Amino acid sequence: MSELFSFHLAASDGGARTGAITTAHGVVHTPAFMPVGTQASIKGVHHDDVRASGAEILLGNTYHLMLRPSAERIAALGGLHTFMRWPYPILTDSGGFQVMSLAPLRKISETGVTFRSHVDGAVIELSPERAVEVQNLLGADIVMQLDECVRLPAERGDIERAMKLSLRWAERCKRTFEGAAPGRALFGIVQGGDDPVLRLQSARTLVDIGFPGYAIGGLAVGEPQEVMLKIVSETTPALPVDRPRYLMGVGTPADLLESIARGVDMFDCVMPTRNGRHGLAFTRFGPINIKNAHHAEDPRPLDPQSRCPAARDFSRAYLHHLFRSGEALGGTLLSIVNLFYYQDLMAGARAAIAAGRFADFAAETKARWAVKSDRRSGES
Amino acid sequence: MSELFSFHLAASDGGARTGAITTAHGVVHTPAFMPVGTQASIKGVHHDDVRASGAEILLGNTYHLMLRPSAERIAALGGLHTFMRWPYPILTDSGGFQVMSLAPLRKISETGVTFRSHVDGAVIELSPERAVEVQNLLGADIVMQLDECVRLPAERGDIERAMKLSLRWAERCKRTFEGAAPGRALFGIVQGGDDPVLRLQSARTLVDIGFPGYAIGGLAVGEPQEVMLKIVSETTPALPVDRPRYLMGVGTPADLLESIARGVDMFDCVMPTRNGRHGLAFTRFGPINIKNAHHAEDPRPLDPQSRCPAARDFSRAYLHHLFRSGEALGGTLLSIVNLFYYQDLMAGARAAIAAGRFADFAAETKARWAVKSDRRSGES
Repeated sequence: MSELFSFHLAASDGGARTGAITTAHGVVHTPAFMPVGTQASIKGVHHDDVRASGAEILLGNTYHLMLRPSAERIAALGGLHTFMRWPYPILTDSGGFQVMSLAPLRKISETGVTFRSHVDGAVIELSPERAVEVQNLLGADIVMQLDECVRLPAERGDIERAMKLSLRWAERCKRTFEGAAPGRALFGIVQGGDDPVLRLQSARTLVDIGFPGYAIGGLAVGEPQEVMLKIVSETTPALPVDRPRYLMGVGTPADLLESIARGVDMFDCVMPTRNGRHGLAFTRFGPINIKNAHHAEDPRPLDPQSRCPAARDFSRAYLHHLFRSGEALGGTLLSIVNLFYYQDLMAGARAAIAAGRFADFAAETKARWAVKSDRRSGES
Repeated sequence: MSELFSFHLAASDGGARTGAITTAHGVVHTPAFMPVGTQASIKGVHHDDVRASGAEILLGNTYHLMLRPSAERIAALGGLHTFMRWPYPILTDSGGFQVMSLAPLRKISETGVTFRSHVDGAVIELSPERAVEVQNLLGADIVMQLDECVRLPAERGDIERAMKLSLRWAERCKRTFEGAAPGRALFGIVQGGDDPVLRLQSARTLVDIGFPGYAIGGLAVGEPQEVMLKIVSETTPALPVDRPRYLMGVGTPADLLESIARGVDMFDCVMPTRNGRHGLAFTRFGPINIKNAHHAEDPRPLDPQSRCPAARDFSRAYLHHLFRSGEALGGTLLSIVNLFYYQDLMAGARAAIAAGRFADFAAETKARWAVKSDRRSGES
């Protein structure tokens, strides 16, 4: 851990924690939600809107960026922050998860993973060393180790093999990352599927290796929410209190509240933007599917009290019309609405934890979702 | 013409004119360029960016809006200004042009035009009376008469028949529009194809009928630029000096400069947004096709001196990457760049006309386009 990268735990409230991660590109207040900038762009949303939503850190996808335009080109253009003009913190994943889920002809060995590029068919090797090198070229503030993520349900033998391979890769990543610029950090990733024993073994070995932060990977990959939360509950106590904990690829607003209660500090998910593009708005009143016909003549905004201009300024009827007409602006506006919603949820959680009332905050938030203001009074 | 709608001619410079149109929703400085909000949305661009570009008036497409979500629904939701949250002036076309170009099974008679909706297959009748009624329901500040537009080249007999039908429709539209709310105006449309005699006949008859503004329609429909400019040159002298002149569906930056020199005050075109979505940026240095490979490593912005943040803040390499990766943000950013460019071109023209140096302004502007700053020095 460099001198400049640090995590300061400001307050705890039950299992929930609030604090701040300091990086060379700025401070990230936790619990934090990271919008996903897959190809150096938050899909359909201008960076200024992402920033206005309150996002303090983005996630960049190493897999996509190494294939196009390539890590070397981004480095030559000044690194990912300069390239995409996001001067704030960036976390990059290792590329491993997307290799497993997207790349054709992938082959995993002790050395690393070999796959064909979905862009031009080239054969690419991604070793733990190369995964760190690519993320260094991108200039990420937080670099993730290469790991092997097993989709659930899976055989215990497969889960254990992948978990142990990920631990060996973690050591190789740490060696490669040594001497990286100050203010940057490499996180280890806990694997072990839905097996608590394997999870504990993974967490303890990673802690022995020693990282400035720890992720919980291999969840939200097909298992029920209660399984995910059980694993989170059993894993976070095995992680150091003074290091940030990042639950990868999660999730719904309810997932976030439950995971914060179990001691998670960081999240990423495509849900706000992907669901937004498909017409689903997250609001204080719960999700609203704007494509439903009963919005067609509804002059009300999504939420007149929202901090988000798109949620206040446009009627549900207009947003409905944009989706029915195939106008891309609809997806953009709902993505912005959702990014604001997720950031406001995190800000609310941080304030509630600091005030020692996180459980009440979570209960109140969920109670509001249950009120069906999706429909106007008098409508069925 | 209502009391509130007015056109004030501030200055002339040769054939070029600058002035201001006052409507119930605000003032439009001329020469003016109207971005096209086909389906109550400027494709891919947030209204705030459209406004920031300097646009004072939008064009809405009656054909699209009457089919979806319907003029009656928009009226029930407060009219188009409220529906789309654009509180500034709006001009709507009559729907005629798009019926001719988009609708299946269209049939033109003295009564009007009958066609099938491309949305749900319903048979729709659009008469001159209904075209005005729809635009009244939408609440447009400037309403266009229904006309028949003939694609060029065409037989003189066809052009003459359509022109004369358009004149009869003009009278019916005027009768229907009488008593409309103050601050709104109905424009007549000069037709006559590429035939100067028919154009003059159309213009003179329309002036006899009497409108607060006149459009030149049926151009930019397949004829060479010199034919279009010749017709414009021969038509504008037949129109009253004290009424705004609107050249429909035009055009390139060069088309605009040439037409302004010939006395045109208003334009609309999808070119800034459509070309933007396809990777073509209009800049002071001429058009730049950002998809070309030589931009892939170019760290320069499109124009560091632009008033448009998107033209200043993002590198050509990044914009190129967005297009190569299929990220919608690329089309959005280039659309914004182009909307700013068009508005800045109009603002420059207005200032130059007021200063009596429009010819120099046009010559200087075109001379800069010829400088090939599309490529870096040393590149072929």
